[in-house]
Amino acid sequence: MAESSQKRQSLEYLDFDREDDSETYGGTRSQDEPAEVEEPADPLASTSTHYDDFHTIDWQRDIAAERQRHRVILKRKGTLPGLLLAGFDACSGWLCVLIVGVLAGFIAGVIDIGAAWMKDLREGVCPDAFWLNKEQCCWSSNETSFEGETCDQWRSWPSTVFTSIDTSGGWHYILAWLTYLALSILMAGSAAQLVKTFAPYASGSGIPEIKTILSGFVIRGYLGKWTLLIKSVGLVLAVGAGLSLGKEGPLVHVACCIGNIVAYAFPKYGKNEAKKREILSAAAAAGVSVAFGAPIGGVLFSLEEVSYYFPLKTLWRSFFCALVAASVLRSINPFGNDHLVMFSVKHDFSWSSWELLPFLLLGVLGGIIGTVFTRLNLRWCKFRKESSLGHYPIFEVLAVAAVTALFSFPNLYTRMNTSDLIKLLFVDCGIGDRTPLCDYKRNFTDAKSRIDIAEAGDGVYTAMWELGLAFVLKIFITVFTFGMKVPAGIFIPSLAMGAIIGRAMGVAVEQAIWNHRTSWLFNEICASGEGCIPPGLYAMVGAAACLGGVTRMTVSLVVIMFELTGSVKYILPLMTAIMAAKWVADALNKEGIYDAHIGLNNYPFLDTKEEFHNTSKAGEVMRPQPEEGPLKVLLQEGLTVDQLTAFLGANTHNGFPVVVSETDKSLIGFVKRKDLTVALTMLNAAENIVGSSPVVFSSHPPASNPPPLKLRRYLDMAPLTVTEMTPMETVVDMFRKLGVRHVLVTSNGTIRGVITKKDVLRYVKTMKGEYDGILINHRHVNTFGAVDT
Amino acid sequence: MAESSQKRQSLEYLDFDREDDSETYGGTRSQDEPAEVEEPADPLASTSTHYDDFHTIDWQRDIAAERQRHRVILKRKGTLPGLLLAGFDACSGWLCVLIVGVLAGFIAGVIDIGAAWMKDLREGVCPDAFWLNKEQCCWSSNETSFEGETCDQWRSWPSTVFTSIDTSGGWHYILAWLTYLALSILMAGSAAQLVKTFAPYASGSGIPEIKTILSGFVIRGYLGKWTLLIKSVGLVLAVGAGLSLGKEGPLVHVACCIGNIVAYAFPKYGKNEAKKREILSAAAAAGVSVAFGAPIGGVLFSLEEVSYYFPLKTLWRSFFCALVAASVLRSINPFGNDHLVMFSVKHDFSWSSWELLPFLLLGVLGGIIGTVFTRLNLRWCKFRKESSLGHYPIFEVLAVAAVTALFSFPNLYTRMNTSDLIKLLFVDCGIGDRTPLCDYKRNFTDAKSRIDIAEAGDGVYTAMWELGLAFVLKIFITVFTFGMKVPAGIFIPSLAMGAIIGRAMGVAVEQAIWNHRTSWLFNEICASGEGCIPPGLYAMVGAAACLGGVTRMTVSLVVIMFELTGSVKYILPLMTAIMAAKWVADALNKEGIYDAHIGLNNYPFLDTKEEFHNTSKAGEVMRPQPEEGPLKVLLQEGLTVDQLTAFLGANTHNGFPVVVSETDKSLIGFVKRKDLTVALTMLNAAENIVGSSPVVFSSHPPASNPPPLKLRRYLDMAPLTVTEMTPMETVVDMFRKLGVRHVLVTSNGTIRGVITKKDVLRYVKTMKGEYDGILINHRHVNTFGAVDT
Repeated sequence: MAESSQKRQSLEYLDFDREDDSETYGGTRSQDEPAEVEEPADPLASTSTHYDDFHTIDWQRDIAAERQRHRVILKRKGTLPGLLLAGFDACSGWLCVLIVGVLAGFIAGVIDIGAAWMKDLREGVCPDAFWLNKEQCCWSSNETSFEGETCDQWRSWPSTVFTSIDTSGGWHYILAWLTYLALSILMAGSAAQLVKTFAPYASGSGIPEIKTILSGFVIRGYLGKWTLLIKSVGLVLAVGAGLSLGKEGPLVHVACCIGNIVAYAFPKYGKNEAKKREILSAAAAAGVSVAFGAPIGGVLFSLEEVSYYFPLKTLWRSFFCALVAASVLRSINPFGNDHLVMFSVKHDFSWSSWELLPFLLLGVLGGIIGTVFTRLNLRWCKFRKESSLGHYPIFEVLAVAAVTALFSFPNLYTRMNTSDLIKLLFVDCGIGDRTPLCDYKRNFTDAKSRIDIAEAGDGVYTAMWELGLAFVLKIFITVFTFGMKVPAGIFIPSLAMGAIIGRAMGVAVEQAIWNHRTSWLFNEICASGEGCIPPGLYAMVGAAACLGGVTRMTVSLVVIMFELTGSVKYILPLMTAIMAAKWVADALNKEGIYDAHIGLNNYPFLDTKEEFHNTSKAGEVMRPQPEEGPLKVLLQEGLTVDQLTAFLGANTHNGFPVVVSETDKSLIGFVKRKDLTVALTMLNAAENIVGSSPVVFSSHPPASNPPPLKLRRYLDMAPLTVTEMTPMETVVDMFRKLGVRHVLVTSNGTIRGVITKKDVLRYVKTMKGEYDGILINHRHVNTFGAVDT
Repeated sequence: MAESSQKRQSLEYLDFDREDDSETYGGTRSQDEPAEVEEPADPLASTSTHYDDFHTIDWQRDIAAERQRHRVILKRKGTLPGLLLAGFDACSGWLCVLIVGVLAGFIAGVIDIGAAWMKDLREGVCPDAFWLNKEQCCWSSNETSFEGETCDQWRSWPSTVFTSIDTSGGWHYILAWLTYLALSILMAGSAAQLVKTFAPYASGSGIPEIKTILSGFVIRGYLGKWTLLIKSVGLVLAVGAGLSLGKEGPLVHVACCIGNIVAYAFPKYGKNEAKKREILSAAAAAGVSVAFGAPIGGVLFSLEEVSYYFPLKTLWRSFFCALVAASVLRSINPFGNDHLVMFSVKHDFSWSSWELLPFLLLGVLGGIIGTVFTRLNLRWCKFRKESSLGHYPIFEVLAVAAVTALFSFPNLYTRMNTSDLIKLLFVDCGIGDRTPLCDYKRNFTDAKSRIDIAEAGDGVYTAMWELGLAFVLKIFITVFTFGMKVPAGIFIPSLAMGAIIGRAMGVAVEQAIWNHRTSWLFNEICASGEGCIPPGLYAMVGAAACLGGVTRMTVSLVVIMFELTGSVKYILPLMTAIMAAKWVADALNKEGIYDAHIGLNNYPFLDTKEEFHNTSKAGEVMRPQPEEGPLKVLLQEGLTVDQLTAFLGANTHNGFPVVVSETDKSLIGFVKRKDLTVALTMLNAAENIVGSSPVVFSSHPPASNPPPLKLRRYLDMAPLTVTEMTPMETVVDMFRKLGVRHVLVTSNGTIRGVITKKDVLRYVKTMKGEYDGILINHRHVNTFGAVDT
């Protein structure tokens, strides 16, 4: 499936071609581990910025190509069409992100509405208007006492089919359970089948891949229109099926798909992979913006987590994109409450400084939960990859959906939408609340009385037990869910797990304080008129801590939570918990779940944040090493066309350094295989070149008969070089910051070897003791097809 | 004054030394424009990270030194002291920013309180408790009807001195005016005298210099303890004197001083200029955080405006620092209103989408005002620099203070504190408001009635006239104020100008709509129950637009304003106006006021955001150019000690490339002048080296008599090189992103020339057509001493 679907994906692009280049420099490397010298940073020889699938892009070359394009446009500015073109070009970036923002907001709204409808569809239907979900259905009725649970207009499936059934009887319950189970399996199965048949790239959260793509890797079709369509539909189905997953991560992928598609309408971005990544950065911000209703948080997420080379330049445009998306979503108003997300909340309580201690504890718990979850999930994903389970993705989804539905139904807190659960845990008990979570022994004299601390009733303890069971089910089932072949985000399950822990902690602290209400501590805390120890705040802090432990987000997470509450007051508790979670999680397991999945799939991602503390030199990392034989180079003079052809036949790398002579290996430049091949075929015919014609790269070749084949214009005269003694730290920095694809290694001016991006990635991974192959060319497609994040 | 004070500043540092190196490579350059090859990125030869004053730092070398230091610490981890040291080292970053945050919050609180007290002191005194300001004085009285204007406890100066004077009479007014004038001049004069005598670096806003310092320039004493002290005291005096300036920009400088001083307590930061800049980045965020009560905005400001090389790595720590500072300031509560800034405001009104049009117009106006102001201010600063006015800084301050006080007193809106004015303009008219700005023809039936749109009374029109005069005075006087030799920020005056324009626009739109209240438009807008066209919101949008026009801030400004209001609702209007302001201002004048002042002072600042669109090659920019004679190089073998000494005497650059031989100029490495000098003096004595001893850089020198002076260990074997054909775009990118100080230019492996950071700066400036010298060594100290920003 993987190979074929990958091919089909590629067919979307007419210009798809691929070179077969997998030989090594020294000739001693195995076939499994091919090296390539990729195209150099050369604006002179070639300004084409087309890349093959699964190749890294060369930022310097792309940016040079963009500057060249811009110069051409500026030159034509004299004429009216030229002026119009220049005007269009100048504002095309803003226009592009505007369209991306509008579409992202719109599609997010559609997905929100669709998922909410699907979710309720498993329980029943609104017979008068099937397109309404439960809440809307009950609104349309005239019952004023609607409590959110049930109304006459809304009919459960058993009572729709068997009109005479007693809706409170045991049979009804069992029938409802069975319908719920069957519909869950049906929806999950459809999602999986859609993904398998039409767009395998639509599975998972997409964030690890988007991080990789933004770091400069090309995966054709990953952000294509089929992926967009299937991911959106599949997301609605998967969320509707009640699987333990969220739509927040996938929304980032959806937004990036929109960004990619819209970018094709603008030559500035569509034809330049490096420039296109500016739009994708903005789109990622828009994705988080609509997922959490947090435009600033979205921009920071894009900056902190996913973007790579150009955060500052695109900051302003990303912000605009995120804001437009949020405004469009607000005008759609999918939840009918003027909020962009279900669990937006306003707290009125304040907190005392000693409460930082339980918040810190929540952070530690969040870090531990995050690590345990990440490790278990990773182990399961590895097992899936290595065992035959990976061949039955639909069966897996059906099984997980069945287990989820079976165990979710009896427990109120797992049966409800996870977003609703989070909302429920985040809000504090109001005066009118009669839910078990708010079963406190309070006596309210009037509707405006203060909500004081009080003893918990039986309902609270029952709710705690049920929440405990819900937590176990969530963490267990999410381990198996995240990584399946359906669109699946990790934000919502993490938040839910953390919110349960946080709420429990809040109630525990609250009751402990209540039991010591005669002590000075109690008087200190709860004597002020503002109420004390709100369990909802604890739930929020716990949720943030747990999400922080799983993803290792920091500033962006604080800002997202801040935008959810809209109050600066809670930044310090949130920050305390998130910081503790990050530290604990980092100490237990170095990588967050996205980086772990990048590693699992061997994506060529060079982390910008890591630091290295060893003392290797470029000479120790370059290829070829002494035992691998000499480096294959071309001479600037002295070869004949026949010899060059034979050389190209015998050596299959993507490019070759050109040196002065056999004895003087001073570096002249670098020439690409592609250009040599083109030159040989084109010039052969045109200029009476014969097999014995000399091939010259020098500027003033001596006259000869037959006339020489002059190749100087294909020569990149400005390859980036380092010396053998250059510390690898500096070399890694050059790859990270300048975005080059390879550097040449010299010693006293003579060429010694080459370091490609792949060599750097291998080096970095070896340093971390986890090298096991890097996906940089098509030989890894088979494993890549089985993308499982 | 400048030279001497500069020297005294430098005396704070014991390790201060300076080389006299100003010769050129080709020997044909004039003395005014010296070039230097600065120390190379060489962790082998030297890990010292000491820099001379007015030199740029080498990031690669500093980071390598830090890694080396870290490796040493990790090695010692086995022993208990080693473990403790490692633990301290690991948390020293957080500890450092914690201390910086606490101190920044505390000092900001002290400055806030001091400035508020000083401000009121010009009008009168609280005889019972002179340390109270007017508001506190009136609080301490028992009058319940205190209206913010006057109370019995508070005595104006005339009525304190002449106890029998009639406080409402003309004489009282004139006497009050005169006292006000005299005290203003006295305070401003003291501020200027303090700055002149103790810390000339304490003048201006400091943001241009901090941008330059963070980009990797060393200015000793600029962030020293004297600057901190004098800037804080001077700020209180200058704000108290009622000069048209704010304390927000200088607070960033103050915070950075704290960061610098605290960093010295931590070897990780104090001894490493590159690492120290991480702390300074965080401190800058803390500065904005306390200036505007906006921690997130502060971090974004640091990221967008001032930081240079490492935004993401320090993001989280900067955020922590900003938050701590804000929390400390909040606990000090300088304004007694639980807000961190005077003009924090809550709007309850909503806005309709057609109002984006006036907001857009405000943005355009803000852009125009910002440009006009920047240009006038720049012209005046140039005049000051070039004329003899620059020699009389105190006289200038006294004159401006006198003019300001003279014209401010009669107008209520200029006499009040500028922060108070901004607050007044930002808030909308409440029910109880009886101020002229709120003189609407409304009839309120009860205290909870809605504040509808209404016809403006005479009071509003009078207020508009007075505000118009205030605007003219503000813009006129601020042009002369910003750049004087007192601590002076530009944020508050810009906000005030914009707020006046915005408020006027708001009232105009409001009255226009009221006059057409029978039309459909009116019904559309003001029929909803939420009130319409709040002039306070317009004032806020106008203020943001004007500040945006002056400083060209974008995202950070939106976030700061968002944190001032706490409501997501107003982000879109703010963004519209700020975007329009930026576009208009960019079209009229390319640089914001900070960049303009950087240019004015010729600081060596290489902008990361600019793009270049020309096609120069490294060979055209490198020194020496063909007409400048050959490059001075050292040979790896063949020189004697005497010849080397003579060579060093004849050529005064900071370093020299080493090549194979006179005929084969293949590059071996790079050696620093400093190391050669040290080697010559040290080895001469130790190893029986005589004048005729050969000097060798090669690894296996032939045996000789006398024995050779081996200098290989001083050789940097990994200098960064580019070829002659490398596009300057790539070279500039290397300087910006890798933070190098020079690159060597080769051709076919042989050395051709050198490009230093100064050459790059000259190239960039020449491209922009504005080259007029760059301050990179001490020869420019004279002009530098006259820093006027």
